[in-house]
Amino acid sequence: MSRPLVLLTTPQLDFAAPALLERYDVVRWWEAPPNELLQRVKALVCMGHHPLHMLDRLTDLAMVACFTAGYDAIDLAALRERNIVVCNAGEAAAEPVAEFALALILASTRNVAWGNALVHAGHWGDGPIRLGRGLPELKLGIVGMGAIGRALAAKADVLGMSVHWWGPRAKPEISTPRMATLLELAAQCDVLALCARSDETNRHMVSRAALDALGPTGLLVNVARGQLVDEDALRNALCEGRLGAAALDVFEVEPTPADRWAGIPNLLATPHIAGATKGNAVGMTAVMRDNLDRFFDGLAPSNRIV
Amino acid sequence: MSRPLVLLTTPQLDFAAPALLERYDVVRWWEAPPNELLQRVKALVCMGHHPLHMLDRLTDLAMVACFTAGYDAIDLAALRERNIVVCNAGEAAAEPVAEFALALILASTRNVAWGNALVHAGHWGDGPIRLGRGLPELKLGIVGMGAIGRALAAKADVLGMSVHWWGPRAKPEISTPRMATLLELAAQCDVLALCARSDETNRHMVSRAALDALGPTGLLVNVARGQLVDEDALRNALCEGRLGAAALDVFEVEPTPADRWAGIPNLLATPHIAGATKGNAVGMTAVMRDNLDRFFDGLAPSNRIV
Repeated sequence: MSRPLVLLTTPQLDFAAPALLERYDVVRWWEAPPNELLQRVKALVCMGHHPLHMLDRLTDLAMVACFTAGYDAIDLAALRERNIVVCNAGEAAAEPVAEFALALILASTRNVAWGNALVHAGHWGDGPIRLGRGLPELKLGIVGMGAIGRALAAKADVLGMSVHWWGPRAKPEISTPRMATLLELAAQCDVLALCARSDETNRHMVSRAALDALGPTGLLVNVARGQLVDEDALRNALCEGRLGAAALDVFEVEPTPADRWAGIPNLLATPHIAGATKGNAVGMTAVMRDNLDRFFDGLAPSNRIV
Repeated sequence: MSRPLVLLTTPQLDFAAPALLERYDVVRWWEAPPNELLQRVKALVCMGHHPLHMLDRLTDLAMVACFTAGYDAIDLAALRERNIVVCNAGEAAAEPVAEFALALILASTRNVAWGNALVHAGHWGDGPIRLGRGLPELKLGIVGMGAIGRALAAKADVLGMSVHWWGPRAKPEISTPRMATLLELAAQCDVLALCARSDETNRHMVSRAALDALGPTGLLVNVARGQLVDEDALRNALCEGRLGAAALDVFEVEPTPADRWAGIPNLLATPHIAGATKGNAVGMTAVMRDNLDRFFDGLAPSNRIV
């Protein structure tokens, strides 16, 4: 029996090829494979924030294994229409992503990035040091209480932060108090952490009004998706001191152009690495393999979204 | 009755002047006060890592209120000989300092500083992203199980790290396992965090041998004192890739010269800010005032070390 042919859509996923090759044949999109090969592709493995420009050429595609938890760039309706099964990473990456949100909060509130730049530039001693704020001095507001939000709430709670959240749906099973609106959450917290799924309903939900509610001592943290934030409003708020600081791992366009942020103060920016740990790469690869295997074994995949 | 005269030794402590002026008269060393004023000084408030060059001129000094927990630059023997009482901050700063150690660990292991530099330099997309390591993938070794070490152990444990420690004295009341030697601790952990008091017995305890035991994937974190580390050996180990990374808040000479670290890879350096939070400034000021007040009220100060 022949091995199913699986397409890897981006070189960022090439590290997963050895795990696939145990059972599947692999073709790489970035190597410009010929049409006759693409027409035999049964499944593809992709990142959920990259659009799938090759779908029309994959005439025999039966399954999409989205490596990530987020799948905002994938046209689910088009896939549903073609009866293509779609799976994602489920909650596999929630712990490392929540840990990264904590890393961004601490790097910002405890002035780690500021201090590192000061020492390396030889300016230590030129003026007074900045006083940070310890976690027990800070109120955290979490937007989106899915697996990432819940993992962040647990970590923040044991480290002494008081935690509230908001999301469009009440979740009575969650003991963390929920605020009535995003604006109310932003107004009463010091750190607003975005952990929500991104879709057509919440684009630019963090608007100028939300940033002003967070205010001149507030910190915005985003480990979810850039589309959740009105980035132009954010740039203006930081420049004008209406927002205290921002720590962003995700952007409206990725890679975000460096000149978009040149001269913007109090911004910590990382290149979409919240899930990028060795342990998580292994764990997410195992979930992706399991999704594929169950599909090709005729079983119900565990993390099916279409 | 006249108010006791208190000397502030450094402008870094001037923020505490209002709290002192409620009960004391204050003279500032950096304003070059005349001898007739210095001869009336009854107590001084200092940072424990700054030597007290003015002691000979303070002929009526009865009490030293060290603002910090560390007091490595203070000549305790000389003060004891003059029957001068010395108090420190006790455990007041342990929580924020341990939190800062956690901030340095996360900023380094999750590549926050690396990523921030990459994005701002416009190099996102030029090559593969670095995979970090999540805390549950890492073994933490704590050197010194005082108040800071214990606070760090508690935080690391709830975030999923496995924790061991070493210090020269066994502490049977502590459940965290103790290794037999510093070298053994360094050899079996991924992150070595220095939380020890610095004195004449442990200068350069983190030697080339300890750094080699920690190894090419190891991370050294120092929130204690620069004297604990052989800094030249550390610079060589980082340059030669024998040590993975270092995150230092303290240095043998402070401010450390920037050119001492130019071109040294994988180094995160902050300007001795582990205790620098707004909440901690308030808390440590209260402890310092309490130490002074109890002394001048004829009571035993709570944090007396001489």
